[in-house]
Amino acid sequence: MIQKYVFGNPFDTEAVVKEIPEEPIGEGGIPHLTMADGNVFSYRMDDGDVIYGLGENVRGINKRGWLYISRCTDDSHHQEDKHSLYAAHNFFIVDGRERFGVFVDTPGRVSFDLGYTDRRMLTVTVEAGGFVLYILEDDSLREMVRQFRKLTGRSYIPPKWAFGYCQSRWSYETADEVREVVRRHRENHVPLDSVCLDIDYMERFKDFTVDEEKFPDFPEFVKEMGEQNIHLVPIIDAGVKVEEGYPVYEEGVKNGYFCRREDGSEFVCGVWPGRVHFPDMLNPDARRWFGDWYRVLLDQGIEGFWNDMNEPAMFYEEGHLEEVLDEVEKFKGTNIGIYEFFDWQKLVESVHNNPGDYEKFYHQTPAGRIRHDKVHNLFGYNMTRAAGEAFERLSPDRRILMYSRSSYIGMHRYGGIWTGDNYSWWSHLLMNLQMLPGLNMCGFLYTGADLGGFGSDTTEDLLLRWLELGIFTPLMRNHSALRSRRQEYYQFGSEDDFRNIIGLRYGLLPYIYSEFMKAALTDDMMFMPLAFVYPEDSEAAGVEDQLMAGESIMIAPVYKQNAAGRYVYLPEEMKLYRMRSVTDMDTEVLPAGHHYVKAALNEVLVFLRPDHIVPMSCGGESVADVEGSKLRLLHFVKNQAVYDLYDDDGYSRNTDLEKSLTGITVDRDGTVKVNGEFAADRVLTI
Amino acid sequence: MIQKYVFGNPFDTEAVVKEIPEEPIGEGGIPHLTMADGNVFSYRMDDGDVIYGLGENVRGINKRGWLYISRCTDDSHHQEDKHSLYAAHNFFIVDGRERFGVFVDTPGRVSFDLGYTDRRMLTVTVEAGGFVLYILEDDSLREMVRQFRKLTGRSYIPPKWAFGYCQSRWSYETADEVREVVRRHRENHVPLDSVCLDIDYMERFKDFTVDEEKFPDFPEFVKEMGEQNIHLVPIIDAGVKVEEGYPVYEEGVKNGYFCRREDGSEFVCGVWPGRVHFPDMLNPDARRWFGDWYRVLLDQGIEGFWNDMNEPAMFYEEGHLEEVLDEVEKFKGTNIGIYEFFDWQKLVESVHNNPGDYEKFYHQTPAGRIRHDKVHNLFGYNMTRAAGEAFERLSPDRRILMYSRSSYIGMHRYGGIWTGDNYSWWSHLLMNLQMLPGLNMCGFLYTGADLGGFGSDTTEDLLLRWLELGIFTPLMRNHSALRSRRQEYYQFGSEDDFRNIIGLRYGLLPYIYSEFMKAALTDDMMFMPLAFVYPEDSEAAGVEDQLMAGESIMIAPVYKQNAAGRYVYLPEEMKLYRMRSVTDMDTEVLPAGHHYVKAALNEVLVFLRPDHIVPMSCGGESVADVEGSKLRLLHFVKNQAVYDLYDDDGYSRNTDLEKSLTGITVDRDGTVKVNGEFAADRVLTI
Repeated sequence: MIQKYVFGNPFDTEAVVKEIPEEPIGEGGIPHLTMADGNVFSYRMDDGDVIYGLGENVRGINKRGWLYISRCTDDSHHQEDKHSLYAAHNFFIVDGRERFGVFVDTPGRVSFDLGYTDRRMLTVTVEAGGFVLYILEDDSLREMVRQFRKLTGRSYIPPKWAFGYCQSRWSYETADEVREVVRRHRENHVPLDSVCLDIDYMERFKDFTVDEEKFPDFPEFVKEMGEQNIHLVPIIDAGVKVEEGYPVYEEGVKNGYFCRREDGSEFVCGVWPGRVHFPDMLNPDARRWFGDWYRVLLDQGIEGFWNDMNEPAMFYEEGHLEEVLDEVEKFKGTNIGIYEFFDWQKLVESVHNNPGDYEKFYHQTPAGRIRHDKVHNLFGYNMTRAAGEAFERLSPDRRILMYSRSSYIGMHRYGGIWTGDNYSWWSHLLMNLQMLPGLNMCGFLYTGADLGGFGSDTTEDLLLRWLELGIFTPLMRNHSALRSRRQEYYQFGSEDDFRNIIGLRYGLLPYIYSEFMKAALTDDMMFMPLAFVYPEDSEAAGVEDQLMAGESIMIAPVYKQNAAGRYVYLPEEMKLYRMRSVTDMDTEVLPAGHHYVKAALNEVLVFLRPDHIVPMSCGGESVADVEGSKLRLLHFVKNQAVYDLYDDDGYSRNTDLEKSLTGITVDRDGTVKVNGEFAADRVLTI
Repeated sequence: MIQKYVFGNPFDTEAVVKEIPEEPIGEGGIPHLTMADGNVFSYRMDDGDVIYGLGENVRGINKRGWLYISRCTDDSHHQEDKHSLYAAHNFFIVDGRERFGVFVDTPGRVSFDLGYTDRRMLTVTVEAGGFVLYILEDDSLREMVRQFRKLTGRSYIPPKWAFGYCQSRWSYETADEVREVVRRHRENHVPLDSVCLDIDYMERFKDFTVDEEKFPDFPEFVKEMGEQNIHLVPIIDAGVKVEEGYPVYEEGVKNGYFCRREDGSEFVCGVWPGRVHFPDMLNPDARRWFGDWYRVLLDQGIEGFWNDMNEPAMFYEEGHLEEVLDEVEKFKGTNIGIYEFFDWQKLVESVHNNPGDYEKFYHQTPAGRIRHDKVHNLFGYNMTRAAGEAFERLSPDRRILMYSRSSYIGMHRYGGIWTGDNYSWWSHLLMNLQMLPGLNMCGFLYTGADLGGFGSDTTEDLLLRWLELGIFTPLMRNHSALRSRRQEYYQFGSEDDFRNIIGLRYGLLPYIYSEFMKAALTDDMMFMPLAFVYPEDSEAAGVEDQLMAGESIMIAPVYKQNAAGRYVYLPEEMKLYRMRSVTDMDTEVLPAGHHYVKAALNEVLVFLRPDHIVPMSCGGESVADVEGSKLRLLHFVKNQAVYDLYDDDGYSRNTDLEKSLTGITVDRDGTVKVNGEFAADRVLTI
C-alpha cells in the first residue's frame, strides 16, 4: 500500500509516473512518523531496526548511524564521513518493530538523520519548499520495493553489448591510443566490448565535437572499432563552452536555452573548457534541443554515452572567483596565525564546488522561473532525460547506452549511473558492493563503480579483487583518472588471471543479462541484501558484505588486501562454486551457517541456492561472441531446480517478457528440460 | 643475529645504542637482498610471504601491497592511499620463505615498495645520503624484535597515572571548562585521570606560557585538579613565536638556537601563532636549552606533556606564501579551463605542508651545518629528546608523561606517541588496531590513537566501539578537533555503557600496566600479530583484526557499524570473557578455529589463553583509586595457570623487574598461590 501526502505547493519532479490519490493529513498525522513544523518527521527506532535504501551514499547496506543529505555534489572524496555524493535518492525502508517505506519527493535538500544525532532516533527534515511524502507498507521488503518501482516507472534498459567489459581512462587521447588498448585485449584474448572516450576526444572540451587531429575521420574509426566488436562511448559534459562560432553555444544563446542570472544574462561558470553556460535542463524546449545534439555523434555511429559533471559541477563561478582573488591579496604582508590560516583555506577552497553558486542562476520551468538551488537535485536527471528522450526519437528501434553521474529518482527511466569518482581504495570496493541494493531499490539497475578505482594509484591485487565483484555488476568498467597509475590489465603481471576473471563475466553473461532484464521488466531488484530473501533470519539481516545477485546466487567477494579467503554466512545450505575461469572451478556443498572460505587472488566465490540454476555461456571475447553460445548449467538440485532464462536480440526497445523466457528444469536425476524459443540442444553441460 | 652495513658517510641518528661491528660488503653483497646502485635493495617474495613492521603507517598488519615512504608529514588525511604519516619507522620483517629483518638507519627519505609496483617484489630505496643497514636473523619473530629493541634501547616508561583515561579536546579553553569536564566525570562516576590542554591554554600560542585570563593562578588550578586525581597535560608546539619581549624567542635569538636560512638569518614560517622560529633540535646546546624551558610548567605542578607539530608542521613559509599570492593575481581576468584550474589548485595547496620548504633552513649539528631536508625525519625525535633529557635532569626521581606526534626510531627512549590527527571513521578504529604491532616492533609501547576520532564528527556507537579497543592501549585518550562534534561521554545517551566500558580499563589496569612494564623492561612487544605467538599456524598469519595483547589474552574488537558481533579466529582453545563491566561478564570456552561471536554495543570480547591468568582490580575512578585494590583473577586452567604480575609505585624512574614481580599460580583444583611482595589476601576472587 502506498499513501501520498502533499505539503505546500511542490514542484513536480516527475519522479512518479503513477497517479495516487492524495491522503488528507488528519489528526493522526502521517503513519509511523511523528511530524513537527510541517517539514520534520521522526521515528523512534528499536535497537534491532535496520534501514535500507538511499541509493548512492556512503556506509553500509544498513544506513543506520549516519546523517545523509540529499544534495547532489561534485565531491570525489567519498570517505565515510561524507553526507552527500552525486545523487539524491530519497527512498528508504525501515525494517524492524514496524516495516514501512518513505519516499520524499522534492527537488531540494533533504536531510536523513538515521541515528546520527541520537542513535535511537530517525529524523527526516525537508529543508525547503513543498514536497510530496509517500508512505509504503507491505509485509515483504521486496514487494514494497516493487510497489515503489511501479510508482516511479520502468528502469532504463541498455543494449546487451553494454554488459560487456569496458576499458576507460581519462583519457585515451588519440585514435591510436584507443587502437592500442583494443589490440592489447584482442591479441591476448582478454575480452572487451567498449572503450570510453573521456573529455580529450573533444575539440577544446566542446560537447558534440570530435577533435579531428586526435581522431581523424571519426565515423571511419567508429566503424573500424565496430568491426572488432568494440563500441566507443564518448563523454558529454553539462557545460557548453562559451565560444563564438560554436553552434551549440550560438543556438543556445539565440533561443534562450541557457540558465540565466537574475538580471537575465547567461550564467557563466568555469568547467573543463573554462567559461561555460549551462543548458536549462528544466526547460522542456531546451531539453529537447540539447537532446537533439546527441544526433551529431549518433550519426557517426556512436551507440552509447556517459553524461558527466551534471550535478552540475563548477570549478568556479566568475563573480565569486573575482571576490576570492581580491580577498587573497589582503593576506599579503600580514601575520597569518591559525585563525587567519583557516580563513585562507576556507577562502581558496570556496572557489570550487561552492553551494552558494547555485543561488546565482535560474531555470525557466513549466512552473515558471525558479532559482537553481530550489530544484538543484533535478539537473543531472534532466540532462540525462534530455538524452534519453532524444534517443527514443532518434533511435526508435535500437537501445542506446546512457549512464550519468548525477541523478534523482525518475532518472532511472532514462539512463543508468556510474557511482562517480571513487578512489583506488579497498574500502571503495566494499562500498561498491554495499551501495548496490540501495541503488536497485531506487530504480538504478544499470550501474557500476569505476573498477580498480578512479583516483589515486591502484595495485594489481586491488584491481583483480575489484573485477571479481565487477563481473556481476551490469556496468563493468575499469576507469581511472589523469595522473593516476594506469590500470589496463596489461600494466600488471598476471595476464592469465585477468583473462580468466574478465572471461568469467562473459561466461556468466546469460545469467546476468537474464537477471537484469527480469528485474527491469518486473520492477524488481537484481542485487538484494540477504534479509530481502531470508526475512526470518536475524543473522542474515546483519550481513553487510554479501549480496543476493539475482534469484540463483549469493556473492561474497574478497575485499581485503592480502586476504586468502573470507568469512561467509549462509542462510541456507548452498553449493559453492569456486571459479577460476569459465571452465575451471571446484564445488563444495556447505551447510547453513558461518564459514571461513578460501579464495585465492584468482578465485571468485559463487554460492548457488538449492533448486536453482545458473546458465552460463562458453565464454567469448565480446558480447557478440557469446550470442548463440551453448549453455552450461550450474545447478544445485535438492528436488527440482527451475530457471526462467530471459534472452532477446540485445538491442530492440520493445521486449516481450513472456516471449523472451525459456523455462529450464533440472530434476534430481539430472534430467534437463528446456521450454520456450531456445532449442534444447543449446544446453551443453550440466 | 644482527649484521651492520655502512654505506657512505651516514649522519648519526643515535637511533642505535648498542655497538655492533661493521660488516664488510663483500662479493656476496647483503644477506637476503639484491643490491643495485648502492642504495636500492630488493627481494623477490613468495606468494605467502608476510611483511610486519614500519610502525606508524596505513594499511594492514601485513604491510605487503603498498608503497610506504619515510618522510614525516603533517597530513591528517590518513586514507589508505597515503604513503607517509607523521613518523619514520624504518624497521620491517619479512616472514615466509626466508625470515629476516631490515632496519634502514638514515635521517632522510626512504621508500619501501612492498609489492606495490610488482606484487612479487620488495624494493627499498634510500633516496639520499649515507646510511646504515642492519640485517636481522632469528628463527623467532618475537626474538628478532627483541634483538632489534636491544639494539635501539629501552622504551620510554610513563608514570602509572598516564594509564588512566584522558579526556581531551581542541580545546578546553578555560579553567572552568576543564572543571566542568572533570565534574561531569566525577559526578557520574565515570573514571578519569587526566585532561589535555590543547593550544588555547597558552598566551597567544606561545610555548611555556599560560594565558592568565583563561587559567588564572595556574599552579593553584593544577593543585585543585590534583586533589581530584586529575592531571593536566599541556601541549607544546615545535615553533616558537616571533615576538619581542617573549623570553623563549629572545633567548633563542640571542644564543643562535633557532634554525637558520642559508644566509644565516632565522628561518620564519607560519604555525599556530603566525610567524615562528624553529628551535634547532639537532644542536645539542639548543636542545638542552629548549628542554630546560619545560621547567616553567613542571614548576607549576605539571607532570605530563604532549609535543605537537614537530614534523615540523608549517602552515606556510613566508617567502613561498608571497610567491603564491603573486601568482594568484595572475589568474585575474583569464579563462580558467581544466589545466589552469589544476594549476590554481596546486598553487594554493602548495602553501601548506610544502616539502620544498624543508630545503630552506639549516641545522647546526655535531656533524656540522646540514640542510633540514637531509635530516628531516629526526626533528620530532629530537624535540621529544630535548624534553626527555630535560625531565631526567629536572625530575630525576619521578617519571614525566611525554608523547609526541612525529617520531623516528630512537625517540621511543624519550617518549611515547599518539598516532596523530585521525578521523571519526570506522576504518580508523581498525587502523588503530593494525598499527599497534608495528609500533611495538619499533619500540613505541606507550601509544594510542585519538579515540572516537580527531577530525570529523563521531557517533555514539563509534566512540563506544573505539573505547572498547582503547581500554587496552597504554595511552587511552578521547580527543577531538575544533569544530567537530563534541565527544565527551556525556554528549551521548548511554551513560551507563560509557561508565562500564571506561571502568573496564581500570579493572584491567593491573594486567595492562604489568604487561606494559614487562614489555618495556625486557624489550618485548605488548601487542603482537597472532603469528608471533603461533608461528606454525598459517591461518593465524592471515588474521588482520585481532591481536595478542600481552601474554594472556587475545583481543578482537568490533570495528564495524551496526555489527552485532564479529568473526574471530582462535589458534587454540580459549576462554571467552564477554565483558560488560568489571563485575558483569559471561564466559564460554571456545575450541580452536573460526567463530562468529556476538558482541553487543556495550560488550568487550577478551579471549584468555589456556593456562593463563588476567589479574584485574575491582575498578576505580582514577588510577590512584585502583592502587592497593584486591585482585580478581580471570583464569583458564587446563593444567596450571601461571602469571608474573609486575607492579611498582608508578612513578619511580628506577625499577627493578625481579623485585617488582609477584608470581601467581592457579592449579586445576582452583588453588591459588601468590609469591612475592604482594600479600595473598589481596586475591579476592577467582
